[in-house]
Amino acid sequence: MKPSVVRLPRLTQAQAPLTCAVQALDEHGQVCDLFIPAERALTVYVDKQELITLMTLGAHPEWLVLGYLRNQRLIESLDDVDSITVDWEAGDAGAGVAAVKTCGLSGDWRERTQTRIVTTGCGQGSMFGCAMQDLAQWSLPDTQLSQARLYEVLARVRQLESTYKSAGSVHGCALFDGTELGLFIEDVGRHNAIDTIAGWLWLQPPEAQPRDPLLYTTGRLTSEMVLKAAQLSVPLVVSRSGITQMGHELAQSLGVCAVGRATHRHFYCYTAHHRFVSQPELGLPPAPGKGRT
Amino acid sequence: MKPSVVRLPRLTQAQAPLTCAVQALDEHGQVCDLFIPAERALTVYVDKQELITLMTLGAHPEWLVLGYLRNQRLIESLDDVDSITVDWEAGDAGAGVAAVKTCGLSGDWRERTQTRIVTTGCGQGSMFGCAMQDLAQWSLPDTQLSQARLYEVLARVRQLESTYKSAGSVHGCALFDGTELGLFIEDVGRHNAIDTIAGWLWLQPPEAQPRDPLLYTTGRLTSEMVLKAAQLSVPLVVSRSGITQMGHELAQSLGVCAVGRATHRHFYCYTAHHRFVSQPELGLPPAPGKGRT
Repeated sequence: MKPSVVRLPRLTQAQAPLTCAVQALDEHGQVCDLFIPAERALTVYVDKQELITLMTLGAHPEWLVLGYLRNQRLIESLDDVDSITVDWEAGDAGAGVAAVKTCGLSGDWRERTQTRIVTTGCGQGSMFGCAMQDLAQWSLPDTQLSQARLYEVLARVRQLESTYKSAGSVHGCALFDGTELGLFIEDVGRHNAIDTIAGWLWLQPPEAQPRDPLLYTTGRLTSEMVLKAAQLSVPLVVSRSGITQMGHELAQSLGVCAVGRATHRHFYCYTAHHRFVSQPELGLPPAPGKGRT
Repeated sequence: MKPSVVRLPRLTQAQAPLTCAVQALDEHGQVCDLFIPAERALTVYVDKQELITLMTLGAHPEWLVLGYLRNQRLIESLDDVDSITVDWEAGDAGAGVAAVKTCGLSGDWRERTQTRIVTTGCGQGSMFGCAMQDLAQWSLPDTQLSQARLYEVLARVRQLESTYKSAGSVHGCALFDGTELGLFIEDVGRHNAIDTIAGWLWLQPPEAQPRDPLLYTTGRLTSEMVLKAAQLSVPLVVSRSGITQMGHELAQSLGVCAVGRATHRHFYCYTAHHRFVSQPELGLPPAPGKGRT
C-alpha cells in the first residue's frame, strides 16, 4: 500500500568541502597556493546491493543519488524511496557510501542496468538503456524563450558565486523558472550537476514546480544533456558551449529549443526556432568576423 | 599457441565525416550556416557478444575500439585480436557496429565489465574495476619536462588544424615524443581521444614507441586521464584545463608530472615537481593579478 499523504524520503545532509588547497610551480619557478575542486568517490547501494560508484564534488550527494536513480529510471516514484544516507567515511579506500533504502522494491538492481550506452560526456558516460525508451511519450510545455529573457538569464549566471571562479574545472547547471533562479549546482561531472537538479526538483511540492522552466549549463549540449532536460519537462536549454550532432538531432525531434555559445549578447539558437522570440534590437552590432559554432 | 611472428590485427578504415552542417538563428535574428561536430553511436561486439555502445566523432573507430579494450584491460595482448571490422550502417537505428574477432579468447565479456566506476569525465564515465588493479606495478620512465620543451609543445598544438577550430565542442589529445608530434586525435569524448591514441600506439612496432612520451589534452586532468596516461607509460601530462582532486592525488602517488592551465607562457606544474625543469627566464614577467587554478 502506498501512503496517501505526502511523505518525503529521509535524507542526510552530508555536504563535504568543495575545494582543496594544493601547491603548484608556475612559469616564474615560484611555488604558489591554489585551490582545486574536490572529487570524491561515492558508491551507491540500493537495498544493500551495490549499484555504481559516482565521482562527485560532494555538494549535495543525496540529491545527486536521488536524481541519478530518477534519470536512469531505476526508481519511478518518490514514494518508493524511504531514505538516502550518505557517509563520506564508510567506504573502502576513502570512498563514501550512499545507502538507499526503498519501500520494499524488489529485484536485481544490477540486472536493470545491463544495457549500457557510453555517452559523450567527455567521459564515457553510462546512460542505461531503459532511459531511452518511451522518448515519444514526453510532452513538453508550450513555452517560448525571448531574447530579452535569455540575456537576463545570462546576466544572472554571471553574478553567481561559484567553485568554478575559485578553483576552475567544474561544470555548472542552473534551473530557472522564467528569469528566476531555482537552483544552481556545480559538480566535477556535468551530468552529476543535472542529476542533482533532478533530485532536488523531485522533492519540491507541486506548487513549487517551475511553470516556465529553462536549464542553463556550462557544458556542451550532448544528447544526454538534451535527454535529461526533456525528462524533467524542460523545453529550453542554454549553454555557454556548443552542441554535438546527436544533441542537435535529439533536440530537434523532441522540440527542445537548444541555444549554445551563449555569452553576453552572442548566441546561436540551434533547434526549435519557433520557440525563440528574436529581438535583434537587443543584440550587438554585427562584427566583421564570424564566431565559432 | 601464440604466433611467433609479428601479426597485427586486421582493421577496416571506416572513417566518417567529422562535421555536419546546421542552420542556427543568431542574435541579429539572422539564419546562419554552421558546422557542428559529428557524433555517432558505435556498438562494440566482441566475438558476437554485445559489450558497450560508444558515442564518437568517428575519426578512427578501429583504433578507438582497440584502445578501449586495452585501457579497460579486457584484452591483454595484441596477439589476442584477430580483426576489428567497423560498419557505420550495420546497427539498429542508424548506429554503427564494431565487430571484434579475438583469436579464440573465451569467457563472458559482459561479466568482466561488472564493476563499474562512473568517473568524472563530465559524463558519468565507466572505468571498469579491473583497470584499477595493480596500479603499483607500473613503472614510468625516468624522464623530465623542461619549460622550453613545454613551450615548444604548446606552440605545436596551436598550429594544429582541428575540428575544434571549425566546429567546436570536441576534445583533443596529442601524443608527443620529445617535442615531436606522434598522433593528434579529437573526439566528442575526451576519453575516446586517449583511448584512440592507446589503440594506435599498440599497433606501432617497438622501435617506433616513444622514448620520451608526453600527453597533451584539452580536457581536465581527472583521475581517469592520469590513469590512462600511466597505463601507456606516459609520465608527463599537459592540459589547457585544470586538475581535479583525484587526478591530483593519483598523479602524485604515481609520480606523473601533471601540468595544467597551460596556454602560451602560463602554466601550473601541479605534481612531481622533481620532473620539471624550471626556466623562469623563458616565462612572462609576473602579472599584477593572480591566475585561476
